[in-house]
Amino acid sequence: MSRKLLLCALVLGPAIAAEPPQVPYPDGYRQWTHVKSMVIEEGHALAGAFGGIHHIYANARAMQGYRNLADGKGEFPDGAVIVFDLLEAVRGGHAQQEGPRKVVGVMVKDRRRWAATGGWGFEGFKGDSKTERVVGRDAASACFACHAPQKAQDYTFSRWRP
Amino acid sequence: MSRKLLLCALVLGPAIAAEPPQVPYPDGYRQWTHVKSMVIEEGHALAGAFGGIHHIYANARAMQGYRNLADGKGEFPDGAVIVFDLLEAVRGGHAQQEGPRKVVGVMVKDRRRWAATGGWGFEGFKGDSKTERVVGRDAASACFACHAPQKAQDYTFSRWRP
Repeated sequence: MSRKLLLCALVLGPAIAAEPPQVPYPDGYRQWTHVKSMVIEEGHALAGAFGGIHHIYANARAMQGYRNLADGKGEFPDGAVIVFDLLEAVRGGHAQQEGPRKVVGVMVKDRRRWAATGGWGFEGFKGDSKTERVVGRDAASACFACHAPQKAQDYTFSRWRP
Repeated sequence: MSRKLLLCALVLGPAIAAEPPQVPYPDGYRQWTHVKSMVIEEGHALAGAFGGIHHIYANARAMQGYRNLADGKGEFPDGAVIVFDLLEAVRGGHAQQEGPRKVVGVMVKDRRRWAATGGWGFEGFKGDSKTERVVGRDAASACFACHAPQKAQDYTFSRWRP
């Protein structure tokens, strides 16, 4: 191996072998735009993972993405961040109130960084923690497998509710 | 009656007899901060008026008001606007999805304009209409009667859910 090639391998090797970059905690998302909400109850196929009341929040670039979808342009710009904020649903008195936070799910769009999962990085932060990650290196199986069939909507499920 | 007094009566008379000023439609509230949500179901005492899923939105001054309450300062500043956005809850498949909008309830703080109802103007806009008012001159009985016991929280029910 030539010196140049060896140097190249030493420099690039770790980068090639590296994990996909981490998805940052979405600081300030509670002030972002509230896109829509849904309640998932016992008996629903997703109740184990997503039972409770969840809200979808979008930063400004993700809001542009929802508008692009509606206009048939069909893609979110890089920098779009969508948050899936899941709270326990506390039933009682013929009502459902918001309980403790279960998980903060995050999708971040960057076509270069997360090319292997449709251009989206996925992560989940447990409860109110900003550091306890519940997805990590399992994004492809834990998240993208369910999102992949949504390719025509840039791998997202939610739509802007006016 | 002196000329001065007559003039005074002519000028001030209509103002004294006037209805409370109208509460404006809260344009752009869907981009305001989402404070909290709740589902009210059949059997709840308020199901007739407020059954469904509702979201509370706050403009920047109302957000200051929630912080004031949390800090024990106990009041919303004039200009605070709180929106109660009520949607039908569509049940099915062990889930509740958001359906058509039922009403957009609004509280606007202005201690001078709405002194008779705790410093708050109240209105409701039917469905997606920005002009069809469902409260009008009935604010004292239709809205404030239920809010009055909440005086210690400046007549509001909602609290910021972090």
